[in-house]
Amino acid sequence: MHSAAILTIGSEVLDGRVQDTNSNFICKKLNKLGINVSHVLSCTDDINEIKELIDFALKNNNLIIISGGLGPTTDDLTREAVSEYFSRPLKLDNQALEDMKTLYAKRGRNFNPTNKKQALFPEESIIIKNSVGTAPGFMIDRQTSDKHLVLACLPGVPSELVSMYEETLEPYYLKNLGNIQPITIKGFKCFGMPEAQIGSIIQSLNLPESIFVSYRAAFPQVHVALKSYTEQIDEYYNKVMAAIGTENIFTTNLDLSFEEILLKLLEDRNLTISTAESCTGGMLSSLLTNIPGSSKSYLGSIVSYANKVKINTLGVDAKTIEQYGAVSKETALEMAINCRKKIGSDIALAITGIAGPDRGSSPKPVGLYYVGYADKDKSSVHQHFLPLKRKQIRTYSSAMAIDIARRHILNLAQIEDTKLPNEIINVK
Amino acid sequence: MHSAAILTIGSEVLDGRVQDTNSNFICKKLNKLGINVSHVLSCTDDINEIKELIDFALKNNNLIIISGGLGPTTDDLTREAVSEYFSRPLKLDNQALEDMKTLYAKRGRNFNPTNKKQALFPEESIIIKNSVGTAPGFMIDRQTSDKHLVLACLPGVPSELVSMYEETLEPYYLKNLGNIQPITIKGFKCFGMPEAQIGSIIQSLNLPESIFVSYRAAFPQVHVALKSYTEQIDEYYNKVMAAIGTENIFTTNLDLSFEEILLKLLEDRNLTISTAESCTGGMLSSLLTNIPGSSKSYLGSIVSYANKVKINTLGVDAKTIEQYGAVSKETALEMAINCRKKIGSDIALAITGIAGPDRGSSPKPVGLYYVGYADKDKSSVHQHFLPLKRKQIRTYSSAMAIDIARRHILNLAQIEDTKLPNEIINVK
Repeated sequence: MHSAAILTIGSEVLDGRVQDTNSNFICKKLNKLGINVSHVLSCTDDINEIKELIDFALKNNNLIIISGGLGPTTDDLTREAVSEYFSRPLKLDNQALEDMKTLYAKRGRNFNPTNKKQALFPEESIIIKNSVGTAPGFMIDRQTSDKHLVLACLPGVPSELVSMYEETLEPYYLKNLGNIQPITIKGFKCFGMPEAQIGSIIQSLNLPESIFVSYRAAFPQVHVALKSYTEQIDEYYNKVMAAIGTENIFTTNLDLSFEEILLKLLEDRNLTISTAESCTGGMLSSLLTNIPGSSKSYLGSIVSYANKVKINTLGVDAKTIEQYGAVSKETALEMAINCRKKIGSDIALAITGIAGPDRGSSPKPVGLYYVGYADKDKSSVHQHFLPLKRKQIRTYSSAMAIDIARRHILNLAQIEDTKLPNEIINVK
Repeated sequence: MHSAAILTIGSEVLDGRVQDTNSNFICKKLNKLGINVSHVLSCTDDINEIKELIDFALKNNNLIIISGGLGPTTDDLTREAVSEYFSRPLKLDNQALEDMKTLYAKRGRNFNPTNKKQALFPEESIIIKNSVGTAPGFMIDRQTSDKHLVLACLPGVPSELVSMYEETLEPYYLKNLGNIQPITIKGFKCFGMPEAQIGSIIQSLNLPESIFVSYRAAFPQVHVALKSYTEQIDEYYNKVMAAIGTENIFTTNLDLSFEEILLKLLEDRNLTISTAESCTGGMLSSLLTNIPGSSKSYLGSIVSYANKVKINTLGVDAKTIEQYGAVSKETALEMAINCRKKIGSDIALAITGIAGPDRGSSPKPVGLYYVGYADKDKSSVHQHFLPLKRKQIRTYSSAMAIDIARRHILNLAQIEDTKLPNEIINVK
């Protein structure tokens, strides 16, 4: 079996200026290939320290991935350290130099002679192209009777490291290392069911031990993945989905966001949408318009943070607010119905609630919110309570509104209202 | 001088499930104390590997901080590894056990006998109280003729580690280690000037070598910090701020966000604000309402993503859009003026632009945007061009709008418009 160590080189990591995210990315990727990572090791840009870490890492591992220290300045010393450690002198690669010059010309930048250093590689290296930035990486592949060593050096810039790992390094591993057993992974994303509940439902199915189930709480969603090195997992995957309830699973495509799912549903049906927001203050609208092409379905919003905007701009009856409060079923419903008319969309969503940290002028508790829904045939209003922090309440209620629209469009049962004592919800 | 190594222990880090943020936190903190961090080292929950890393770390360092592996389960082995490495048997601390039982009772949880393990510490340890969670940490302090070793073990849960570092470990260092020279740090946050320009302005000031200047690009802001171990830095700090231009510096309080600065300015002057958003789709509104207490100044928004919403809801003249286009000075200005009237705020900001990835029906280029401003006495409109990605264009134009309001309120010069050829801006 293969075993890997990751070395991240750079003073900016050790003095705390930069949070290293590269090693986490590589750990995840290698884990999916079934390759164990034994160590993540960081040191500053110092030749001897880099060599010492390579030495330490090579004791128990055959795969080494080094990130950082490949830039053009004098404090970038990874290539020198690798060259010295393996006694392979640095040689200029003319093709890499030409590629670099072409890239600089294309970007309208001057090619500074100090950049030439980035075309130097230890003898017999395999060059790893960089399609994002200027510095190429390189690999040393050395097969002996007892060990197949592959040491790869990638730049520290995360976007460059990610693309070079995905485009070159992982395919190289899959092609050249034996004994790689890629994991089969199938997953889905849920909304509205707590992680613990999902966990206990899946536990009760008694899946075989060769099926690993992993959970990720990606607030406010829960992502579930089934993994196996050996078994066909389709049968178990379907069993799990049926037990969770397909209405609670908004996608089986782990690359799609909740917003994308709703916009896709709308676009497929040629429907438009608008939102009326109070406590979320534009967050729902901003989430939807983050998605390229959202203008096909999303028309606009009225963010009525102040009551006078609810009344004057959105046209909510002042008496409704007076009688039931701004945070009430009645107000949420009127917000949705009026928003749909004012903006002229097929569907409208409204959110009103108390995001905290204090309850302001409202006698109702922080975390109480209502979502209103209206389309041409029907309307509905939903009461939920989530006594968490401001940001979480805003995020969760935005997601709840998206889910309510999704379930309406697909004719699925809605998540049940949170039941609350009358003395809480009936105060104005 | 002291030198530190940080060890993070846990399989969840090495298989990629968890992004380690503890070491970055500690690196930053030690850096402020002027303590050099030579290595960050991670291994799985394995006694021999932990001992091996302690051994490696002790070669060149006198301060070791270990995070993780202090939990109650069988795979938490940090205390055992430290005990074995230093040949100090584990002993039950009755006070720690009592404290733990009290905490469990207070939280209404059953004290499981397996938790007892968390009250075991290597002989002669100094216990580090945990005011957030259940597992206490511990320290070994061993002074020999040539080395003052302090090894501290903290839990891996970030909130616990942070509070234990701040409440106990840092004060312990300051009190018991000699030669600690805390760094003096003073900084500020800028908007609207590229990092390279700021860098060259500061470079031209020829500050003494004892003043370290560090830059952080926190898109769309640039944060600058001056640090020194020895010198009084006020004089240089003021010199730098004057050279950058105080109008470009929106705060010298590194804890405040751009949104908080604007809301504070509004609140101090008893002014209200509203926004009319097109390409930002509610992002500006959401940024402002993220801040607790924003309801004191923020009233609401009309997110007019579709032209028909600009015309029907916001009241922009259809002829303006027809003649100049939805992305134009004229439309931006009308959006701001109308928004102010419709919502009834003292100030209104409007944003219209092309966020991409494609230009949609507009003949104007991706990245072109206009910000309109209106208050009771005046109005203004600003043209900017930032041909980047959708998310960056939305983020940058939201920040630009905040900056335009800030400069108007403080009577500061505005950032100059981006000049563009007429054939670009005069197409409809």
